[in-house]
Amino acid sequence: MLRPIGLALRALLCEEGNIRDMDSIDLTLLRDTLVAALREDIGSGDITSHATIPAAARATARYVTKEPLVVAGIPIVEEILSLADAELQFKPLAVDGSSVPSGTTLAEVRGSARSILTAERTSLNILQRMCGVATLTRQYVDRIQGTRARIVDTRKTVPGLRLLDKYAVTCGGGMNHRMGLFDGVLIKNNHLAFHSSAAQAVQEARRHLGHLVKIEVEVRDLDELKGALDAGADVVLLDNFNPEQTRKAVQVVADRVPLESSGSVRLETVRSFAEAGVDYISVGALTHSAPAVDIHLRVTRE
Amino acid sequence: MLRPIGLALRALLCEEGNIRDMDSIDLTLLRDTLVAALREDIGSGDITSHATIPAAARATARYVTKEPLVVAGIPIVEEILSLADAELQFKPLAVDGSSVPSGTTLAEVRGSARSILTAERTSLNILQRMCGVATLTRQYVDRIQGTRARIVDTRKTVPGLRLLDKYAVTCGGGMNHRMGLFDGVLIKNNHLAFHSSAAQAVQEARRHLGHLVKIEVEVRDLDELKGALDAGADVVLLDNFNPEQTRKAVQVVADRVPLESSGSVRLETVRSFAEAGVDYISVGALTHSAPAVDIHLRVTRE
Amino acid sequence: MLRPIGLALRALLCEEGNIRDMDSIDLTLLRDTLVAALREDIGSGDITSHATIPAAARATARYVTKEPLVVAGIPIVEEILSLADAELQFKPLAVDGSSVPSGTTLAEVRGSARSILTAERTSLNILQRMCGVATLTRQYVDRIQGTRARIVDTRKTVPGLRLLDKYAVTCGGGMNHRMGLFDGVLIKNNHLAFHSSAAQAVQEARRHLGHLVKIEVEVRDLDELKGALDAGADVVLLDNFNPEQTRKAVQVVADRVPLESSGSVRLETVRSFAEAGVDYISVGALTHSAPAVDIHLRVTRE
Amino acid sequence: MLRPIGLALRALLCEEGNIRDMDSIDLTLLRDTLVAALREDIGSGDITSHATIPAAARATARYVTKEPLVVAGIPIVEEILSLADAELQFKPLAVDGSSVPSGTTLAEVRGSARSILTAERTSLNILQRMCGVATLTRQYVDRIQGTRARIVDTRKTVPGLRLLDKYAVTCGGGMNHRMGLFDGVLIKNNHLAFHSSAAQAVQEARRHLGHLVKIEVEVRDLDELKGALDAGADVVLLDNFNPEQTRKAVQVVADRVPLESSGSVRLETVRSFAEAGVDYISVGALTHSAPAVDIHLRVTRE
Amino acid sequence: MLRPIGLALRALLCEEGNIRDMDSIDLTLLRDTLVAALREDIGSGDITSHATIPAAARATARYVTKEPLVVAGIPIVEEILSLADAELQFKPLAVDGSSVPSGTTLAEVRGSARSILTAERTSLNILQRMCGVATLTRQYVDRIQGTRARIVDTRKTVPGLRLLDKYAVTCGGGMNHRMGLFDGVLIKNNHLAFHSSAAQAVQEARRHLGHLVKIEVEVRDLDELKGALDAGADVVLLDNFNPEQTRKAVQVVADRVPLESSGSVRLETVRSFAEAGVDYISVGALTHSAPAVDIHLRVTRE
Amino acid sequence: MLRPIGLALRALLCEEGNIRDMDSIDLTLLRDTLVAALREDIGSGDITSHATIPAAARATARYVTKEPLVVAGIPIVEEILSLADAELQFKPLAVDGSSVPSGTTLAEVRGSARSILTAERTSLNILQRMCGVATLTRQYVDRIQGTRARIVDTRKTVPGLRLLDKYAVTCGGGMNHRMGLFDGVLIKNNHLAFHSSAAQAVQEARRHLGHLVKIEVEVRDLDELKGALDAGADVVLLDNFNPEQTRKAVQVVADRVPLESSGSVRLETVRSFAEAGVDYISVGALTHSAPAVDIHLRVTRE
Repeated sequence: MLRPIGLALRALLCEEGNIRDMDSIDLTLLRDTLVAALREDIGSGDITSHATIPAAARATARYVTKEPLVVAGIPIVEEILSLADAELQFKPLAVDGSSVPSGTTLAEVRGSARSILTAERTSLNILQRMCGVATLTRQYVDRIQGTRARIVDTRKTVPGLRLLDKYAVTCGGGMNHRMGLFDGVLIKNNHLAFHSSAAQAVQEARRHLGHLVKIEVEVRDLDELKGALDAGADVVLLDNFNPEQTRKAVQVVADRVPLESSGSVRLETVRSFAEAGVDYISVGALTHSAPAVDIHLRVTRE
Repeated sequence: MLRPIGLALRALLCEEGNIRDMDSIDLTLLRDTLVAALREDIGSGDITSHATIPAAARATARYVTKEPLVVAGIPIVEEILSLADAELQFKPLAVDGSSVPSGTTLAEVRGSARSILTAERTSLNILQRMCGVATLTRQYVDRIQGTRARIVDTRKTVPGLRLLDKYAVTCGGGMNHRMGLFDGVLIKNNHLAFHSSAAQAVQEARRHLGHLVKIEVEVRDLDELKGALDAGADVVLLDNFNPEQTRKAVQVVADRVPLESSGSVRLETVRSFAEAGVDYISVGALTHSAPAVDIHLRVTRE
Repeated sequence: MLRPIGLALRALLCEEGNIRDMDSIDLTLLRDTLVAALREDIGSGDITSHATIPAAARATARYVTKEPLVVAGIPIVEEILSLADAELQFKPLAVDGSSVPSGTTLAEVRGSARSILTAERTSLNILQRMCGVATLTRQYVDRIQGTRARIVDTRKTVPGLRLLDKYAVTCGGGMNHRMGLFDGVLIKNNHLAFHSSAAQAVQEARRHLGHLVKIEVEVRDLDELKGALDAGADVVLLDNFNPEQTRKAVQVVADRVPLESSGSVRLETVRSFAEAGVDYISVGALTHSAPAVDIHLRVTRE
Repeated sequence: MLRPIGLALRALLCEEGNIRDMDSIDLTLLRDTLVAALREDIGSGDITSHATIPAAARATARYVTKEPLVVAGIPIVEEILSLADAELQFKPLAVDGSSVPSGTTLAEVRGSARSILTAERTSLNILQRMCGVATLTRQYVDRIQGTRARIVDTRKTVPGLRLLDKYAVTCGGGMNHRMGLFDGVLIKNNHLAFHSSAAQAVQEARRHLGHLVKIEVEVRDLDELKGALDAGADVVLLDNFNPEQTRKAVQVVADRVPLESSGSVRLETVRSFAEAGVDYISVGALTHSAPAVDIHLRVTRE
Repeated sequence: MLRPIGLALRALLCEEGNIRDMDSIDLTLLRDTLVAALREDIGSGDITSHATIPAAARATARYVTKEPLVVAGIPIVEEILSLADAELQFKPLAVDGSSVPSGTTLAEVRGSARSILTAERTSLNILQRMCGVATLTRQYVDRIQGTRARIVDTRKTVPGLRLLDKYAVTCGGGMNHRMGLFDGVLIKNNHLAFHSSAAQAVQEARRHLGHLVKIEVEVRDLDELKGALDAGADVVLLDNFNPEQTRKAVQVVADRVPLESSGSVRLETVRSFAEAGVDYISVGALTHSAPAVDIHLRVTRE
Repeated sequence: MLRPIGLALRALLCEEGNIRDMDSIDLTLLRDTLVAALREDIGSGDITSHATIPAAARATARYVTKEPLVVAGIPIVEEILSLADAELQFKPLAVDGSSVPSGTTLAEVRGSARSILTAERTSLNILQRMCGVATLTRQYVDRIQGTRARIVDTRKTVPGLRLLDKYAVTCGGGMNHRMGLFDGVLIKNNHLAFHSSAAQAVQEARRHLGHLVKIEVEVRDLDELKGALDAGADVVLLDNFNPEQTRKAVQVVADRVPLESSGSVRLETVRSFAEAGVDYISVGALTHSAPAVDIHLRVTRE
């Protein structure tokens, strides 16, 4: 069950270079997601293709961009096509992480016309979303060039697509925060409601956690920030600090721990946070509000 | 496996009124989606909540809007919370399909603080997306008030969430096009590449299809439109016609079949298509590019 | 997971010719069904084959008919054998949809003797049933030769095997009605219990349904038939009309909509309905009561 | 996952009395089967019920026989209805295993009209098949009254429904042979192809099998029968013996081991085999060719 | 889904020779187990290998024993590696069932360094356990050399691993008792609590069971033994008899049925039971308490 | 699907006190494991209980210890019983984490005798293993009383049971290391084979990892230890250091980072490592070689 994806994805997903922070992933989860997406669309059968395309018809189809974008998801498209029909011949023509102009052919697929048409929408839906996430991420990354800050994502991903969303963020040059609730501690305001102070929460957490776990804590003002530092927080998240407050926080911390800005960050304002000296700026919009980019599938009869 | 969802969702999903076009759905698919979403986030455990919140702590939490929006997904939130912890007490305070101002409490949940915090992000991710889709749909619907046209969705949904996406569209006052490739015939340009004309494609399709199937065909100009009509198309989709071309198409058809406008429709231009006299206007952006709306979970210690 | 079936089945399932109405199907559902069938029989292991056949023994086996029949399911047999042991070499010797005499070898398989014996019963159970359905269907089809009517199936299929049952019907020359509750509207008596008239039910349904949906309505007499026509039904099902009543209905309708006869149709009576002039005759017995035909697996040691 | 079925089915499936040979079964397998059956029919939604029945409508529905039959599957119907909508109130009015005349109400269900109509076909498909199997079995059982023989089933069941098929056989008064390849040894002709004699096959099998395993062997004539006895077979199956040959076999065996008749047994001939003195008569037709019986669901608006 | 395992495992699992009592198994169950084991360890990704090993790095790795042991599970290791990365080249260097000294290389694998390291722990966990079971079994088998008794396992296996546990027992020279509750009858003390005597329980069971089922009954003293024999038990289990009592039981039975010793059997005492003349000695410790043996994976950079 | 386990397990699994380091877990994984365990044993049915116990028979059963042990898994037993039959009444009589003498009744269950007997073995297999792990862990913990060291587990768990194995370790007073490859970085010798030094590996890893990730590195001597410290390792694992070498390592580190001893640690030697001053001692045997403890189920007829 895990086999084919090993071949198709391993090479590209783990590419070194500007896509360097993507963890090797549980490929079986990815495959389940793609199969579910195909099933949801195909159901008991693609009646249009069956009624209009001869069984023997063959086609060549090209994924062509209709606007400039950052590429993400080419190996995923290959996998979807392969799941729909293992006989399809796929030829990638662009590399995840690259910026391409409008009119670029990202990939080409040849084989059964019916199979290509049946898989068209599912493959486009995923590719358009992934490229959309990568493209928006790249815009944020470009805005903070030359600063020490890095753009990181959040857990505000589309349900079921977290691995793909987070991979697309790395294609855009962003960095992944924790994958889920299981692999990182981030004490937020809603946790602090159960403690007298951020400092006390950090201390309590330390008592329960294994020796490989870092603790990040969300603070709302400089006092909480100081308390968190004293309590031994490993990372501090500045919640809704404006750039000026952020600058002060950077001075207070003085490089003792990394700082992360979060909340109210927009393309227009992201550089002011970066220039305030934080290490990370997390942006939920990368994954919860990235618009799909426009990519067409051009099918030619062979 | 199918049981509890029957209770929670049946009442609301099938509500008469302005949300009237949602088909009764395969609830087991919905449940699989929600479980997958929870698993993806929780993995081997929510280590933050466990390390900072006592097992016995109880909380009340409120889903509060931070901007005006159209509500969609309240029963889904209830289901997610129930999947995470069947003991949680859920109280809906808003009805799917209603427009609410910023600051509205949409629902309240009481019970184990750990459980609420563990399910927080997954429930918010889905609620913010569904309300986002409904809110954007409502904007389109409002723009064409007083015309005969209806806003319909497309298959450009997020992989795995089609049922929820399409339900959210109905909450916004839109209407659902076909659910997938299995329950409706739409002959598009990529199918026409295998035929000499739209008319010939329609005739070929008619030969293969059962007696309950309508055939919609996509046309690119008035000539194709006439051919499709002559060939007996049941519905015609006008692909990338501008409003002026659309008006001419309406005259040509003269109410013989319903007409659907598609392509290049934006909020600014939607009314000009509606006023051209079409019956349906399909908008992919409703589901592929709706930004998440802002909703917070406010947790209070009990 | 979807791969291999693409190769084996795509070619045959979608063959043009007298098997033309089978929708392209969700192959993953089919595969799940076949795996479940194998698991149900094999469980923790085929202890007889293991105890009596050496691991290295090889065999040739032939599927041989013991009575005249219409073939259906050869590619399914290939798939089952392949699921049981991918090394088995399968050679189809008959084409789905063809009529063959007793003593015909439908297919041959070579490879591990244990594997062949382990998969024997499951493959025969499915093949005997599918050929049984196709053979019975062909008898009905033959009886109405020369009329305009077509034999269609119903949803009275064996639970879990609908796709195979409906495919077998097309092998016999029948035509598929809707696949399930999701892809066609048929308002039956039990729905009419909630309406003052068939006409009112049709009108109500029209309000709720998308623009690609046709409405078929079941009527019990000529008055209901007229009401349904006036209300704009797209297709009318004549429920338990006798041939004489059917003839009158045909006159009333005068080709305005297609007519379907249903209920009480037997091999002996089917032609009288066809000659009454209807377009479709649905026969539940095709799938709910077709007896299995007799096919043996003849195993030879190599 | 296993819970609810425990309540509904445990009481009836394991009833003492004339249904005594049904093994306690793996209920999770059963549940998977029923969910798959519902999904196959409902898919993305029951659009007819949704479009014609108000969400709030309530109904009473009765399962009414249209011919005399032996009841089997009432608890299964309850389970299906419960899976579709846990709020439905089910009232069984007949007991599995009983013979009832035409016009009998087997069960009644009350609740959401939409839910009842959505589950109607799936529940009827299973009930009509199970009663069909039980009814045919009872006919065979009745024919051999007064002899020592018992009617047993085979593995020629419908793929995916073996547990239900075999349960229905016990409702008709038949007895279950092995459940699958995993829980009993039956050396058939196809196994014997790899051995010089039935005797040698039995000896080989004995070497490999655990101490709880009985060996049944299929023989084609009296010589093979004697060889099998000498080799220590625990049970012998007489393959296609006619009644006269069967009588001779009974004399040869002289009660040393149980004898099973198989092949070419029809309702008209079954008694002659029973009177020849065998212990078991296996009949594949019980499950592979039982016609569905006629049962209607009568829905009344509340 | 079943395919690849057919190739890898069929050859070895069913090997003739000293591993002869393993039933052919439901390979799909096995595969599910292995995938679950990999998922449990890898989760959302192996972050260490990703962060420290270049994507292109290749390695050779050897499974090397650190103590003398009996081999079991080499084909399972191959399957796990293949599931993790189908490109890995596996070379078995030892045969299941053989005894090897410390320092033996059991197998070698070459390919992506990341893939090998990701699958290392899962493959070792299973291999160390299976060899542990086989090694302990061999010690018991060796102790009773020259007697008529055979060592058999029990159902006291690790949940989810029964097939592998029981296969490992055969690699050590033991024999498999029933696989589960479904394929053999063993009436134990807890069943006898519902009967007046073992004899009565046997008679009751006989009434309900098919003709291929043997009945084994557990007895606590010689009186119960005699009752069980009179009632027609096929096999008798001597529960916690000491060697002296066992000897008397053997005399009482006088080869009429096989006898199985169970309870309180340890390596030190097993021979005294064997010499008492029983046919089978079941040892739960083979699977519930076998310590893992020490095997390392030595990875070399290529 | 997740519901019932929430009730049963949440209370106990997350109990404060001496079981404080268990993360809240993904309950759906746990449930899948338990269902698989039941299915594996029950298969197509428990034929012994069915044949010997009347359907209506009721019983009381007690889980009684036959040796002193540390309790672990009582809520898991409740869940298994509930999965087998939701009507069973369960009464826990001991708390996970407590030490109890031989003869203690850990829990009592009442209800259908058949259900209890069917679930007996599966529940005992899991309980005996979990108590075995907890009991062995407690022995290690007791040996190092009064030192600063803590006993931690490893990933050498039984495939499929990691969550239960790790929970049982906490019941014995041990602490959990990382759950899998996804939630902690541990650079081991096999990773170092791809680097010139431990220091270089740490630096490389740091470049790729998110800001919440700590890096633990395995060192083989004091030089590697110093390099690791200089490179910024967050935790250091001393691989097969003897107590004397360990003491020197503690001096070198001087509390800059936590130290973990691993390899060759036995009950007899564990204290010497603890007294050398390390923070953690990891012991694979806790989970890969803990023998099952002896617990019986005493069934009484009601």
